[in-house]
Amino acid sequence: MPTKQELLNNPIQHIDIKQHNVVALVDAMQQMAYSSRDLARAASIYERMLRDQECGVILCLAGSLISAGLKQIFIDLIRNHMVDAIVSTGANIVDQDFFEALGFKHWIADDLLKQGTEDATLRELMIDRIYDTLIDEEELRICDETTEKIANSLDPRPHSSREFIKAMGAYLEKEGKIPAKGGVDSMVYAAYQNDVPIFVPAFSDCSAGFGLVAHQHARQDKPKVSIDSAKDFYELTQLKIANPTTGLLMIGGGVPKNFAQDIVVAADVLGMDAPMHKYAVQITVADVRDGALSSSTLKEASSWGKVDTTYEQMVYSEATMALPLVTGYAYHKQAHAARQ
Amino acid sequence: MPTKQELLNNPIQHIDIKQHNVVALVDAMQQMAYSSRDLARAASIYERMLRDQECGVILCLAGSLISAGLKQIFIDLIRNHMVDAIVSTGANIVDQDFFEALGFKHWIADDLLKQGTEDATLRELMIDRIYDTLIDEEELRICDETTEKIANSLDPRPHSSREFIKAMGAYLEKEGKIPAKGGVDSMVYAAYQNDVPIFVPAFSDCSAGFGLVAHQHARQDKPKVSIDSAKDFYELTQLKIANPTTGLLMIGGGVPKNFAQDIVVAADVLGMDAPMHKYAVQITVADVRDGALSSSTLKEASSWGKVDTTYEQMVYSEATMALPLVTGYAYHKQAHAARQ
Amino acid sequence: MPTKQELLNNPIQHIDIKQHNVVALVDAMQQMAYSSRDLARAASIYERMLRDQECGVILCLAGSLISAGLKQIFIDLIRNHMVDAIVSTGANIVDQDFFEALGFKHWIADDLLKQGTEDATLRELMIDRIYDTLIDEEELRICDETTEKIANSLDPRPHSSREFIKAMGAYLEKEGKIPAKGGVDSMVYAAYQNDVPIFVPAFSDCSAGFGLVAHQHARQDKPKVSIDSAKDFYELTQLKIANPTTGLLMIGGGVPKNFAQDIVVAADVLGMDAPMHKYAVQITVADVRDGALSSSTLKEASSWGKVDTTYEQMVYSEATMALPLVTGYAYHKQAHAARQ
Amino acid sequence: MPTKQELLNNPIQHIDIKQHNVVALVDAMQQMAYSSRDLARAASIYERMLRDQECGVILCLAGSLISAGLKQIFIDLIRNHMVDAIVSTGANIVDQDFFEALGFKHWIADDLLKQGTEDATLRELMIDRIYDTLIDEEELRICDETTEKIANSLDPRPHSSREFIKAMGAYLEKEGKIPAKGGVDSMVYAAYQNDVPIFVPAFSDCSAGFGLVAHQHARQDKPKVSIDSAKDFYELTQLKIANPTTGLLMIGGGVPKNFAQDIVVAADVLGMDAPMHKYAVQITVADVRDGALSSSTLKEASSWGKVDTTYEQMVYSEATMALPLVTGYAYHKQAHAARQ
Ligand SMILES: NC(=O)c1ccc[n+]([C@@H]2O[C@H](COP(=O)([O-])OP(=O)(O)OC[C@H]3O[C@@H](n4cnc5c(N)ncnc54)[C@H](O)[C@@H]3O)[C@@H](O)[C@H]2O)c1
Ligand SMILES: NC(=O)c1ccc[n+]([C@@H]2O[C@H](COP(=O)([O-])OP(=O)(O)OC[C@H]3O[C@@H](n4cnc5c(N)ncnc54)[C@H](O)[C@@H]3O)[C@@H](O)[C@H]2O)c1
Repeated sequence: MPTKQELLNNPIQHIDIKQHNVVALVDAMQQMAYSSRDLARAASIYERMLRDQECGVILCLAGSLISAGLKQIFIDLIRNHMVDAIVSTGANIVDQDFFEALGFKHWIADDLLKQGTEDATLRELMIDRIYDTLIDEEELRICDETTEKIANSLDPRPHSSREFIKAMGAYLEKEGKIPAKGGVDSMVYAAYQNDVPIFVPAFSDCSAGFGLVAHQHARQDKPKVSIDSAKDFYELTQLKIANPTTGLLMIGGGVPKNFAQDIVVAADVLGMDAPMHKYAVQITVADVRDGALSSSTLKEASSWGKVDTTYEQMVYSEATMALPLVTGYAYHKQAHAARQ
Repeated sequence: MPTKQELLNNPIQHIDIKQHNVVALVDAMQQMAYSSRDLARAASIYERMLRDQECGVILCLAGSLISAGLKQIFIDLIRNHMVDAIVSTGANIVDQDFFEALGFKHWIADDLLKQGTEDATLRELMIDRIYDTLIDEEELRICDETTEKIANSLDPRPHSSREFIKAMGAYLEKEGKIPAKGGVDSMVYAAYQNDVPIFVPAFSDCSAGFGLVAHQHARQDKPKVSIDSAKDFYELTQLKIANPTTGLLMIGGGVPKNFAQDIVVAADVLGMDAPMHKYAVQITVADVRDGALSSSTLKEASSWGKVDTTYEQMVYSEATMALPLVTGYAYHKQAHAARQ
Repeated sequence: MPTKQELLNNPIQHIDIKQHNVVALVDAMQQMAYSSRDLARAASIYERMLRDQECGVILCLAGSLISAGLKQIFIDLIRNHMVDAIVSTGANIVDQDFFEALGFKHWIADDLLKQGTEDATLRELMIDRIYDTLIDEEELRICDETTEKIANSLDPRPHSSREFIKAMGAYLEKEGKIPAKGGVDSMVYAAYQNDVPIFVPAFSDCSAGFGLVAHQHARQDKPKVSIDSAKDFYELTQLKIANPTTGLLMIGGGVPKNFAQDIVVAADVLGMDAPMHKYAVQITVADVRDGALSSSTLKEASSWGKVDTTYEQMVYSEATMALPLVTGYAYHKQAHAARQ
Repeated sequence: MPTKQELLNNPIQHIDIKQHNVVALVDAMQQMAYSSRDLARAASIYERMLRDQECGVILCLAGSLISAGLKQIFIDLIRNHMVDAIVSTGANIVDQDFFEALGFKHWIADDLLKQGTEDATLRELMIDRIYDTLIDEEELRICDETTEKIANSLDPRPHSSREFIKAMGAYLEKEGKIPAKGGVDSMVYAAYQNDVPIFVPAFSDCSAGFGLVAHQHARQDKPKVSIDSAKDFYELTQLKIANPTTGLLMIGGGVPKNFAQDIVVAADVLGMDAPMHKYAVQITVADVRDGALSSSTLKEASSWGKVDTTYEQMVYSEATMALPLVTGYAYHKQAHAARQ
């Protein structure tokens, strides 16, 4: 049996789109077919939504993206005003981004491990596996505990996930776990600094859930922190009302995709006349034939009155391949130059 | 342009597994290959978990399953003690099951519509599309409003989604929207009658979200109903602690799959020694190579200490094809005979 | 290391659709959504093409279907006049069907083997793996050699694959490897008896290829058997011309799908006015977004003038699950009652 | 109804990897996860096989790759000694590459067309569709006729597809349809000039099939050209025997993948001791769970004794996205510098 150290020795490194000018490459793809052409069109729609200074860009994240080496992209989007709000699954924000901010890493698994035949060994070593990537479970437990500590420090009342995640940003600053103090950079901190709200509609479904369960368990009948996902929905809807022109950059599907699309309807329910999302891009490998939300086309979303169809594009690709090209394209074309 | 009536005239009808004895068919698949063999093994694992009278069966639902004609299966599972708790997306429970309980229907779309080229027409007619199925958006708005009414009737405090959904069951009973009063049967009502808890971890991400936003908007600074998903997690974890032997029957992946798996870890966080889920079956078309939770193997889950690997099986199939066979098999083998 | 006997002890058994009346089940799927509805429609189109007594039914096979337990279905289709011509990959016809006719079997692999981590062991044991199924390589070599023997016995001239496969049927009869003599039944023999032509457009790409290479190598500059795939194409086109109304039942895609579709154009090239295929059904898991032939829609084929769009249906499903339902439906509705 | 000119006005343009230095980008992907990491490993294996001067590189092509804008890549591989033999489907070589050499183009389809709802219009206009790309069917008929002309010019005996394709190269030269005479460049011509053999094991399954059927029809009982795919197999096997160290670069799967893998066994059948393919890379979106050849892992191929597992990598990606990166990486690292 290998040791933990032997297995956890080759860290995931986050790609830096600032280093790779892919403009000519993506432009060439525009005249090809299939996914490459779709990707080029998606990149140019993202460019277009950034050049539209009215447009509030909502980034939607599902899947294990941070552990896969995409963290720096999201940080760069935040710091360069290329995104105005984020809706994500909990894993990306807490178990992965905040986890790395605490000083921990994700590790490249040896190719054989992803077949699953060694999972019993991993179990014994307290190593968790995400397909081809490994995590030290003991470090993850520290992350859980940290979220409990943060919960304990908050007012015992319903919070939106956005409020809680903001508190996580404040915690990182307070603890010096930030670049200026020698720490590693994180989405949570960059968003905190730049006032970019992060919403996690299923917030208990991640490391923070463990912290919150521990918190609520300890409080018993005393007042306690709760996470109100209706409040999240209300807050994001108000952003839409305040800033009617919006565009979606969606990686994967799931709850974040639906949540962000639904705010158009929610505004309507509140009696406000909010237009459909004007721009929409989604990168996914989900198959349309399962009828699920992740794979549902943006055209389908237009039947619900959620997404306009003039500027929408789905890209059928695993995200680690497509996202560096889509975002790198917009970045190197300086599409964000005039924002903020 | 067709009229709404012309497009909404062929209703989805829910398959009744009680009418189809598939035991011999599924047994034959056991000696074949690929998905059919996997399906047969999944069916026999589901049979096995039902025969294990200690075993609490947790049903996990993602995707648009009720609109697809699978509702009666879930009702039958509840009424025949073939499921002890349910974790679902909101769409299945509120927009689809509760929606039908209110007297509305889902409609079969003409084959051409699923290409998306007629979505602008659907928009004009206030018809929403789920791939090859249609919904009257005006009826869906009534469903939203009903959830607002229910929210208004509740104590202004944090509720688990389970509590809210129970109130929805009570509402159906009170309003006579139940079989005994000539209404149609529903999961929400069957679960209410049979004390089967239903959890929806991202509860605002569905029709109920609209109702809750309206409720919170109306209350302004007054005390209001909130939905505490940490409470859901805590409650489900306590079920696990009270009833340590558990099995998962998962349709699709998403938040419900992760949420149900995580309670093993949550029990541990609370200092209780809960065993991994002993049995696990998942039906999905998600592709393992995207590294996301939906597609992650049950072997991978064992590296996290969540699922035991002795009795686990994934079936790669769209659910409308596989689920009638898996559940029909267990039903006609009377695997549940001795339960409760 | 396990022994060969230990690994090869649980044989694949072929499903017998005659034992499973799935008519009510498939009829129920007609009112559901997604793949089940598509499957029900495909089954009723297959029923319809059989009831059309003018219609010549062409069965197209790709993938490893015989090794997967579907052999008896194809035999039953042949013996019940539910198919008039077959276009297949070589693997199905030679490596798998003829191989079993020679007295060999396919074996169920232990679940772990399909991860590929034990392939070095299999190599050492001379066991070949097809995903979750095993083959004794030494037996396969006997199959190769038998095709060489058959090649040696033929006129040294260009043959269509159809002629060669007919000679394989004659060989089985001569050797007594047929049910009447205690042998196992096979497609090759059933087709031989019933005069159903079998075409394999890429005939050297299978066990027969090894036999033919050995044959040609031995002959050196002497006259030798060659396989003329243009002749196959010409023969199948002539069938189309003689019998203009045609329907396609396609399992998987690949060369057989394209080959059978192309005969409409070939007839046109020969100056004959052959109509498009009137009926077409395809079962596949190929994804349309790769732009390849296997996944291309039957609507797309209509742009090429190959397939009429009134009665066409693709079913997105792995074949071992869908095919027993599609063919069993037509069989138990006695759609073939009036044929021949 | 639009006119043909209106629909066919935006040509596919072939990507030129020589213009895009992707080395740093691909190197960054090496430390990420999922498909990007697989892609980076595949690129480095391709680099490694080129640096191995003993290694004969066999390029395998399935899917519609030329029509998708990948032609120039293959031409560059040929002209830079980055490939030593090619096995392909007929469509790529005849209907697409040779077709373009004759002076014709592929056209970008408007996004709506790929939904298939306009295929009847395309039919009327004699426009053929490949997913999101269009072809003038009248031009394709000229391509068919040209292959007939070439068939007519050949010795009336069995030919390997390699011989026929070489004659196509000679035809292009004779007709001046080559860059030096103002024509466009093509794989067929580049391979002709550089003595790179091209094999198409199912040669009648493409435009050439129409030409050959017409040829054979006209010849009636007179001696005629036939295409002997056994000869192809024999010839490729002899290449393997002459040059034992081999590597495979496979785009898509299908017949070419199997054909090229099988030569290891064929050499063995001829009594020669040929080693397994030492290197193997495949780019595909095929799903392993269908048990078919396209999706079968390279580990599985090792159980058949066809592919060594030390340097093998599958990349799950649509080819237009992955191939420019894999080949561009090797090209810009000058991996081929010392070849020939
Ligand atoms: N689906 C809808 O129409 C709809 C409507 C309103 C709200 N929502 C909300 O969107 C969120 C996510 O929805 P989701 O669960 O539809 O998305 P999802 O796409 O995330 O589905 C999860 C997984 O389940 C698998 N799956 C889904 N349907 C399947 C099927 N028929 N067969 C096999 N596998 C299948 C998918 O492949 C996917 O991997 C939820 O919060 C839900 O309440 C959805
Ligand atoms: N498969 C083998 O084990 C094997 C062995 C020897 C030779 N070959 C040769 O390889 C070539 C190509 O083989 P192929 O047909 O296996 O490859 P393929 O992968 O090209 O299959 C063609 C298409 O059929 C679909 N398909 C295949 N199996 C399916 C299933 N079970 N359910 C649904 N869809 C399915 C695939 O998705 C694919 O799109 C042929 O010439 C064959 O003779 C194959």
